[in-house]
Amino acid sequence: MNISLPLILVNFKAYSQGTGANALKIAKDADLVFKETGVNIGVAPVATDIRMISESVDVPVFAQHVDPIEPGSHTGFLTVEAVKEAGAIGSLVNHSEHRLRLADIDVCINNLRKAGLVSVVCTNNEIVSSAAAALNPDFIAIEPPELIGTGIPVSKAKPEVVTGSLEAVHKVNRNVIVLCGAGITTGDDVYAALKLGTRGVLLASGVVKAKNPFDVLMSMAEAVIKVEE
Amino acid sequence: MNISLPLILVNFKAYSQGTGANALKIAKDADLVFKETGVNIGVAPVATDIRMISESVDVPVFAQHVDPIEPGSHTGFLTVEAVKEAGAIGSLVNHSEHRLRLADIDVCINNLRKAGLVSVVCTNNEIVSSAAAALNPDFIAIEPPELIGTGIPVSKAKPEVVTGSLEAVHKVNRNVIVLCGAGITTGDDVYAALKLGTRGVLLASGVVKAKNPFDVLMSMAEAVIKVEE
Amino acid sequence: MNISLPLILVNFKAYSQGTGANALKIAKDADLVFKETGVNIGVAPVATDIRMISESVDVPVFAQHVDPIEPGSHTGFLTVEAVKEAGAIGSLVNHSEHRLRLADIDVCINNLRKAGLVSVVCTNNEIVSSAAAALNPDFIAIEPPELIGTGIPVSKAKPEVVTGSLEAVHKVNRNVIVLCGAGITTGDDVYAALKLGTRGVLLASGVVKAKNPFDVLMSMAEAVIKVEE
Amino acid sequence: MNISLPLILVNFKAYSQGTGANALKIAKDADLVFKETGVNIGVAPVATDIRMISESVDVPVFAQHVDPIEPGSHTGFLTVEAVKEAGAIGSLVNHSEHRLRLADIDVCINNLRKAGLVSVVCTNNEIVSSAAAALNPDFIAIEPPELIGTGIPVSKAKPEVVTGSLEAVHKVNRNVIVLCGAGITTGDDVYAALKLGTRGVLLASGVVKAKNPFDVLMSMAEAVIKVEE
Repeated sequence: MNISLPLILVNFKAYSQGTGANALKIAKDADLVFKETGVNIGVAPVATDIRMISESVDVPVFAQHVDPIEPGSHTGFLTVEAVKEAGAIGSLVNHSEHRLRLADIDVCINNLRKAGLVSVVCTNNEIVSSAAAALNPDFIAIEPPELIGTGIPVSKAKPEVVTGSLEAVHKVNRNVIVLCGAGITTGDDVYAALKLGTRGVLLASGVVKAKNPFDVLMSMAEAVIKVEE
Repeated sequence: MNISLPLILVNFKAYSQGTGANALKIAKDADLVFKETGVNIGVAPVATDIRMISESVDVPVFAQHVDPIEPGSHTGFLTVEAVKEAGAIGSLVNHSEHRLRLADIDVCINNLRKAGLVSVVCTNNEIVSSAAAALNPDFIAIEPPELIGTGIPVSKAKPEVVTGSLEAVHKVNRNVIVLCGAGITTGDDVYAALKLGTRGVLLASGVVKAKNPFDVLMSMAEAVIKVEE
Repeated sequence: MNISLPLILVNFKAYSQGTGANALKIAKDADLVFKETGVNIGVAPVATDIRMISESVDVPVFAQHVDPIEPGSHTGFLTVEAVKEAGAIGSLVNHSEHRLRLADIDVCINNLRKAGLVSVVCTNNEIVSSAAAALNPDFIAIEPPELIGTGIPVSKAKPEVVTGSLEAVHKVNRNVIVLCGAGITTGDDVYAALKLGTRGVLLASGVVKAKNPFDVLMSMAEAVIKVEE
Repeated sequence: MNISLPLILVNFKAYSQGTGANALKIAKDADLVFKETGVNIGVAPVATDIRMISESVDVPVFAQHVDPIEPGSHTGFLTVEAVKEAGAIGSLVNHSEHRLRLADIDVCINNLRKAGLVSVVCTNNEIVSSAAAALNPDFIAIEPPELIGTGIPVSKAKPEVVTGSLEAVHKVNRNVIVLCGAGITTGDDVYAALKLGTRGVLLASGVVKAKNPFDVLMSMAEAVIKVEE
C-alpha cells in the first residue's frame, strides 16, 4: 500500500449532491486542495462515477463497496476487478449502511489485496474493531453508527471510543491504520481526531452537503498541517 | 418508453470478458451490428462501465441492477439517478442472480419510470411472471434458472414455459413486453424465441464469452430480420 | 383450506408480552373468546412457542414465517414440515418486518399448500397486493407499513387503500380472502374493516400489548358478530 | 458458563430425520449415551422443537440460530429470550449455512451472555477464527465449508486448519473453547479432533442421518473417554 497519510476520505454516498456532475465538482475541489496543501484527500463516489472521476483528478478514488465475489456469472454486483479497471485504488468495506457477513469481509480484504487495492473496513465499536483488525485490512474506520450524519464528531462526543478502539486494534494488529469517522464536519473535528492518534478521517455529509465543499476541505487540510507541524 | 423492438439484450454480468476494455469492445460490436442491420441491441455492463460505454456507442445501455432507494445516505448502493446520469436508459430488475423482495421490485419499477427509464423484470416461471406483470414493468424476461448458462435455449427445451408465461403475463397486463431468456446462444435460438411470440431475448455468456461476439450478434440480428420479414 | 371466517389473526411478534408463558396466556384468552362467541381467532406466536400453544388451545395456530426451503441441510431456518409437525395450520408470509423475494413467496405458498397449510401473504399497497394475488395464496393481509403499530387503523385512515386493494386482488384472483391489517386496536376498527368488505383482520400490539387482551379480543369478537348479523 | 467438556454437539439442521418426533428420538439417544458414559452431548434442534426436547431430556439443548434483535416488533425472528424460555442453554451463531454480519455476531454473543446463555460461533478458516475470537464468544467451531456434509473429517483432511485455528484463536483470546466441525462421522474422527487439542466436535448428518444414531453417539462418547484417560 502506498497512500500518503494523514488521509481525509470523503464518502459521496448516494447523495444527489455527490452524484454525476456534482461528484466531479467535489472531486476537483479535493484535487485542488490536495495540490495547494499536499494533504491527501480520497474520494469515494458511487460506482457509476468512479471512472469519470479517476480520469479527471489525481487524488485517490475509492469504491464505496465491492462484493465478495470473483469475476463470473453475477448480475448487478461489483468485482474488485471492475472497480480497479475503472481506476479505484481501494474500497470501503462493511460501511454501517452496507454491513457484510464476517466471512465476506475476509474475502473482500483478500480480493482487494490480491489486486493491489487498499481496504478500509468500517466498524462500530471497540470489540468489533479488534475483530476487524484480526482480518488484517489496511485501514479501519471507527464510526459509532449513532453519530453518523449528526454533525456531532465522535472525536469530541466519544473520544474514549476512538482511543479505546485504537488500542484494541493495535493490540491485535499493529499494521492497521485507524481512521476516525462519524460526525466529522469541520477542521476542528479533524484536528481532534488526529490528536487522539488516528491517521485520518472518514466523512460524508460534512463535505458533500456543504454549501462550499472546497472551503470545508481546505479548513480540514489546514487542520492536518497544524497537527503535523 | 421508446425502445425499438425486437430487442436483443446482452447482460455482461461480472465476466472478465465483459468488464472494462473488454466490455467496451463488445458494446462497439453491438453498435456495429445495429448500424449494419437496424436490429436493436441493448447492452448491460457492470455499473462502473455504464458511463464509458454510453458515451461511446449509440445502442441503448442498461444497468444490471438498481437499488430500491432514493438519493441520500446510502453507501455502496445504486440509485436510478446515478445510472441515469451515467447514461443508462433502463435497468434489469430482479435478475435470477440478484433477486429482490416483492415490495422492492415495485419500488424499482416506479423509480425507473419516474426517471423516464425502462424496467426489465426477470422471472422464473409462469406464476411469478403473472405476479410481475401486475407490477406493470415495461418488460418481463422469462428465465427458468435451471437453464441459465447452459446453452440449452428455453425456447427449445421448454417452449411451453415461454408460451405459458406469455399468456399468463398478458392475461394480467397486456402492455408488458416479454423477452425470452436462459440458454440463448445462437441465431436459431433467437429465431425460435421470436416465433413463440416474444419480442426479444435476454442473454449473457452466449455473446460475452463467445470467441467472436460480433459474429454471434450478427447471426442473431439476421435471425431477427428473418422473423420480421 | 378450512378456516372459519371472519378471522381475527393475532401476530405475537417478538414481544416479551407475547413470548413463552405470556404467549400461552394470550392464546388461552383467544381460546376462551372463541368458545364463548364462536368467532374464529388465530394466533401467531414465535416458532419456539408453536407446539406448546397448539397443544393447549383449539384456536388455529400460525407460524409468523417459514423459509423457502425443503427439509435438508439448512441451519437455523424453518421448513413448512417443522411448523406443521409443531401444530401450525398455516403461516404468515412476507410480513412487512420480514419481506421475502418475489420468487421465494411463490415457493412458500406452494410449500405450505402441498403440506395442507394456509398462507397469509402480507402486502403494502394495491399494486403489490395484485401481484401477490397472482401467486394464489389463501389470504392476503393489506398492511400499509406506515400505519403498523400506530394505533391508527387503516380501515379509518386509508379506507381507499383497503377497498382499492380488495378490488385489485379480486380482479386478478377471486379466490383470495383479504384481511385488513395495520393499526387495528379496537372492536370498532374490526367492525370498520369488515364493513369495507374484508373477511378479517391481522393485528399485533393492539392485543399483545393490551392491559387486558381478553377484553380486547372479546370486543373484537362482538364487532364481528355485529357485522355478521 | 457451566458446560462439561469435551462436548459432542449435534446440529439437527432442517433434516426430516431430525425434526419433530425424529428429533425427540435422537435427543433421547443422546440422553441415554450421556447417562451411560457421562460424556456431554448437546443437541441443536429446529426452533419449533426446542421446548419439547428440553422438557424431555437432561442433555443441553442449543438453538441453531438467534437473531440480533431485542424483544419487540419483529415478525418471524427469534430473540434470545424466546429460545431461553423454551429451554435452550445456548445457540449456534454464524453457522456456514446462516452467516451473519460481523456487527450482528457481536450483538448475538452479547445478547446470549446477558441472558446467561452460551454462544458457539462457527468459522471457516484461521483468520476468520481469530476475528471471531476477538468478539469473545464461549465457543468457536471451526468448519471449513468445503468439508461440511462430506464425511471427510477436517481433523484428518486438514489437521493444519484445526491446529492453525486453535493457535490463532488462543493468540487473540485464551478463554475461547474450540470445537472441531465438518465431516465428523465416527468415533475415530472425534478421537482425532480431540487429539489435535480441540475440546469437542460440532457435527450433523453423521448422527442425524445415521441408521442408528445411538450407536454412532456411543462410539463417539467412547472415543472421548479414550482420549480423556
